[in-house]
Amino acid sequence: MIRFLSDYMEGAHPEVMRRLQQTNLEQTPGYGADPYTAEAVERIREACGCPGARVQFLVGGTQTNATVIDGLLARHEGVLAAESGHINVHEAGAIEASGHKVLTLPEHEGKVWAEEVERYIENFYADATYPHMVAPGMLYISHPTEYGTLYTRRELEALSRLCRERHIPLYIDGARLGYGLAAAESDLSLPDIARLADLFYIGGTKVGALFGEALVIPRPDLLPHLMPLVKQHGALLAKGRLLGVQFATLFTDDLYLRMGRHAVEQALRIREAFRQVGIAPAVASPTNQQFFRLPNVLIDRLASEVAFDYWGPRGEHESTIRLVTSWATRPEDVDRLVELLTTA
Amino acid sequence: MIRFLSDYMEGAHPEVMRRLQQTNLEQTPGYGADPYTAEAVERIREACGCPGARVQFLVGGTQTNATVIDGLLARHEGVLAAESGHINVHEAGAIEASGHKVLTLPEHEGKVWAEEVERYIENFYADATYPHMVAPGMLYISHPTEYGTLYTRRELEALSRLCRERHIPLYIDGARLGYGLAAAESDLSLPDIARLADLFYIGGTKVGALFGEALVIPRPDLLPHLMPLVKQHGALLAKGRLLGVQFATLFTDDLYLRMGRHAVEQALRIREAFRQVGIAPAVASPTNQQFFRLPNVLIDRLASEVAFDYWGPRGEHESTIRLVTSWATRPEDVDRLVELLTTA
Amino acid sequence: MIRFLSDYMEGAHPEVMRRLQQTNLEQTPGYGADPYTAEAVERIREACGCPGARVQFLVGGTQTNATVIDGLLARHEGVLAAESGHINVHEAGAIEASGHKVLTLPEHEGKVWAEEVERYIENFYADATYPHMVAPGMLYISHPTEYGTLYTRRELEALSRLCRERHIPLYIDGARLGYGLAAAESDLSLPDIARLADLFYIGGTKVGALFGEALVIPRPDLLPHLMPLVKQHGALLAKGRLLGVQFATLFTDDLYLRMGRHAVEQALRIREAFRQVGIAPAVASPTNQQFFRLPNVLIDRLASEVAFDYWGPRGEHESTIRLVTSWATRPEDVDRLVELLTTA
Amino acid sequence: MIRFLSDYMEGAHPEVMRRLQQTNLEQTPGYGADPYTAEAVERIREACGCPGARVQFLVGGTQTNATVIDGLLARHEGVLAAESGHINVHEAGAIEASGHKVLTLPEHEGKVWAEEVERYIENFYADATYPHMVAPGMLYISHPTEYGTLYTRRELEALSRLCRERHIPLYIDGARLGYGLAAAESDLSLPDIARLADLFYIGGTKVGALFGEALVIPRPDLLPHLMPLVKQHGALLAKGRLLGVQFATLFTDDLYLRMGRHAVEQALRIREAFRQVGIAPAVASPTNQQFFRLPNVLIDRLASEVAFDYWGPRGEHESTIRLVTSWATRPEDVDRLVELLTTA
Repeated sequence: MIRFLSDYMEGAHPEVMRRLQQTNLEQTPGYGADPYTAEAVERIREACGCPGARVQFLVGGTQTNATVIDGLLARHEGVLAAESGHINVHEAGAIEASGHKVLTLPEHEGKVWAEEVERYIENFYADATYPHMVAPGMLYISHPTEYGTLYTRRELEALSRLCRERHIPLYIDGARLGYGLAAAESDLSLPDIARLADLFYIGGTKVGALFGEALVIPRPDLLPHLMPLVKQHGALLAKGRLLGVQFATLFTDDLYLRMGRHAVEQALRIREAFRQVGIAPAVASPTNQQFFRLPNVLIDRLASEVAFDYWGPRGEHESTIRLVTSWATRPEDVDRLVELLTTA
Repeated sequence: MIRFLSDYMEGAHPEVMRRLQQTNLEQTPGYGADPYTAEAVERIREACGCPGARVQFLVGGTQTNATVIDGLLARHEGVLAAESGHINVHEAGAIEASGHKVLTLPEHEGKVWAEEVERYIENFYADATYPHMVAPGMLYISHPTEYGTLYTRRELEALSRLCRERHIPLYIDGARLGYGLAAAESDLSLPDIARLADLFYIGGTKVGALFGEALVIPRPDLLPHLMPLVKQHGALLAKGRLLGVQFATLFTDDLYLRMGRHAVEQALRIREAFRQVGIAPAVASPTNQQFFRLPNVLIDRLASEVAFDYWGPRGEHESTIRLVTSWATRPEDVDRLVELLTTA
Repeated sequence: MIRFLSDYMEGAHPEVMRRLQQTNLEQTPGYGADPYTAEAVERIREACGCPGARVQFLVGGTQTNATVIDGLLARHEGVLAAESGHINVHEAGAIEASGHKVLTLPEHEGKVWAEEVERYIENFYADATYPHMVAPGMLYISHPTEYGTLYTRRELEALSRLCRERHIPLYIDGARLGYGLAAAESDLSLPDIARLADLFYIGGTKVGALFGEALVIPRPDLLPHLMPLVKQHGALLAKGRLLGVQFATLFTDDLYLRMGRHAVEQALRIREAFRQVGIAPAVASPTNQQFFRLPNVLIDRLASEVAFDYWGPRGEHESTIRLVTSWATRPEDVDRLVELLTTA
Repeated sequence: MIRFLSDYMEGAHPEVMRRLQQTNLEQTPGYGADPYTAEAVERIREACGCPGARVQFLVGGTQTNATVIDGLLARHEGVLAAESGHINVHEAGAIEASGHKVLTLPEHEGKVWAEEVERYIENFYADATYPHMVAPGMLYISHPTEYGTLYTRRELEALSRLCRERHIPLYIDGARLGYGLAAAESDLSLPDIARLADLFYIGGTKVGALFGEALVIPRPDLLPHLMPLVKQHGALLAKGRLLGVQFATLFTDDLYLRMGRHAVEQALRIREAFRQVGIAPAVASPTNQQFFRLPNVLIDRLASEVAFDYWGPRGEHESTIRLVTSWATRPEDVDRLVELLTTA
């Protein structure tokens, strides 16, 4: 069986494991007050071109989103997000559990459009009953999106400009950021993101770490009192250095980007193989998630040897499937998939 | 100036005021433990044909909705509601502030369709990632809806049956219930509602009271510990007897229904007058809220003498307006409106 | 039966009722955008010597406390209060329900001491683990306290100074403020309170209104976005003018103070009568609540003709009782109590 | 420098690391649906003598406490805990952030007494105003406590009996459970705890794991819908198998208990050394945390070579310090401490 189910099916990149092993019996202070965390912070600041940024490591994506959004919003505010946004669909109501409404915007292959964000805000304040409504207090986007698509620099600049004009922070969920940065078509670097977003997180769980996300706040006074907030959300790891060791490794010798490139390369090989048998991708994703609409007959044939997910319900005659690569994808598994497809 | 802006622009029905005045200097225990409240509870039980119902008086609609929904839902559950539902649009995030997501359904002139509710629930449990999503834990509808429309008995029976099959409570927001019960086209009585809903409230604020809503729970064990919940939501009136006196009066000599009929009668006169000048109602509302799409020229003409609200943004050439009648609407004001329209 | 059970057993002062009756059929905009509310705001600003204050009317005390505290605190902060504070004991967890811890201080006849507040804050920041603890974000006091006692000007100045040095707002729960302002021993006027507190509310429910509290914020930018916050807490009265009419009346011709003086006068007559039969007050309360520790025999004798509350559990031989007067207390009822006592 | 600062200063027990390394590149389903997690669940059920228990792994203690308590309590309920309880003092208000009050009880070296719990509950329901107060909905205790002390079997039985009579769940925070089970004086085994508690967690973070806690629910219907609750709290680890691998290892060949015994043995050697120089322990702790009150002169002398924490503020002449051992404590470090003490 070859598996393209998700990008969190293995443990960590071997180099990460090696460093964890190597440092295992050292004694360090807890909660991130250790030298490995300090090193990781420095490396991330450097990679982002943000020497003054606050970098805080958390364990997982949902808890990072919930902590950041809870910390940023005033009580009467909600968070704008695409209808398909992870916080709106797949976090079990974590945002609402801390008291805030997710205000949904139409999604375009997972992305929001600046003009629609602007219209939402304008309509809100134009409505005479707006004090009875939830004020848009920040914008959440994911990059890559839940569909693997990417914002262009131009699109992100438009969102950033709008958010700053409207004084609402722009927050980027970068659970798969590594796979976005590595995409050939992407014109956005890490320093671009640090310049355009007000906060973002660099995903580790899906990109080479055992677990962990690096929250970056270029202007730290945007979210003071971060430490008690993280603790209150149950997101403060006692052995904080585990996060430090991992991220210091990921940001050494370009490992983070190298892993990203590997996954994207394998994903594009898969896309190309489907194209060759006449199946265009269902979504124009340049990253590690690929979606295809196939006849059920073909799906069933593949399924005997390849593991993947349905995307949405199975149709009567054809259905959409998702295949995901990662830093750990073996090229020979992709070879076999290509073979299966082209000889099918 | 004649006013059709809303149904909460006056104080209370004169008979309600008379009773408040009459009992003003009596001393009674607080928080609803007084004989007037006991009397009002009995009268409402009788009107609903529910001798065992729990009846609890609260001050306003938003706080009633927030208290009920917070009390019914488990932490991992959300409330299903039409996209246009009051709790989704006009309660400033009160539901989310107590930790719960509003799960939206398409609206059809303010109503939800049983088959769409069912599909939502089925899709939810069919999705393999459902433990990452917010479970539908109850259904909220308003009757009349925010557009003045009414569920038919058949529609309400379908919703009720579905909710009982799925073990999710059906809750009806009856802020304007009196105007719904009084509509000629309505085939739903108060006992019908008490039989089909798991909880509902009978609105007083918009139907003759100074303020107040009567929450009715036909099977009280559905929401035990109601008292501390009401207190926790800041919704427990110290001088609870004020609510008792008012509702006892509203449910004496059919006052509640008589007021409803008066308002609906005046609303239909307005609808008829618009029809006569060739303007069909924008929404098929048989109750006290009427919506019309008019040329702006006509709107501006009316506006010099008549107060009403725009419904949505003003258009370039024509716009939608809302006119609302109430127990307090003076027939002579409607006469004047009719005159204005027909001579315009 | 003569009753000294509480100060919320009657309706409203007759003059308040008269004004409500008189304005009952007028049509005004909802939610406080009416001329009566504007008038009440002006009168209260004047009475407080605060022409720039924000004045917002709410329905009850618990909802006022919950709304204010929720609005002021950041997520990682809690509210300092006496262990006996209303928010800590008798609000069914309303503060915690909006996510905040009540941080308790020792109480001294219901009051907190500035030096103990200071020590709490100092110890907090001295503790190395403070980011794991809840930060003191504001101070809540009640005046009069739950025991009827009053802060002196000197005490309130000390608390005010401390709070400003520490940048935590001082909030005064004035549910019975009228009875405090009227006490002969009090050296605090309404303008003093407006100068020393950062926010406070002037209680109406217990002092002459049917219901209602007037929240005063001398420097309004301390709590911006108040309107959606009030709505979110279910505390925005649709017919807001009911609050306006009542408070405009209470603050006309010194009615609020006159009622206060009446209640205190009657309370002191009761205190004096107890003294004459050799029973000193259990608490040195100069306001409308009086506490006495009596032999159960005497309590039982009184109870046949006088209604009052136990304060704490009934003891084996003696117990503490509470007697409360109000604007509505009839001097002849006090005469009879005095007679009962002195002839007992 | 030799360090007795805490029990979360190293990584994981080497055997745990070895297993993580060994399984690192395997592909398994996420969120705990993997064979390692299944194996760990079985081993823990067996160790607890509870074949039907639900076992759920979470990342850390605060998030476990917050998730469990949030899931168990109804909205109007709070959690009873010792004033010194971790949830009351050191979790940054996580319990209140999910809407619930911590109802404090006196602490006796960190423990609560059954008779005081009972009195609290009785007083609560005896108070006429109890619907205005927060109902005691569950009991939280820690074992070992924050002071390293242990409940005896007799004490735990009394608490368990009381909680079952009163229908409030008893929840045990076992962050350091391994060190409690290993204490020679303890008469409580893991099956005893599983029999007497309604829920408890077996701490991994402080006892040999990189991170992780195993929540055990002997009668799983006490907390249904656990999965979405865990997700909502941001506590669902994507690579759930990391927890499975660790706990399967900890519960193989008695490793968990063996580590516990080692730590306690070293702690008792420290206690004995202090005794020999005439310093009795400040708290009668039979586990891995030891507290001593020493002259500051001695503290300063030790501090040049030994790392430890102050417990409370430094006094003028003497202060209390805490020394903590763990599975990783090197006997030679204890030797050196003993030497330092006895030659001091």
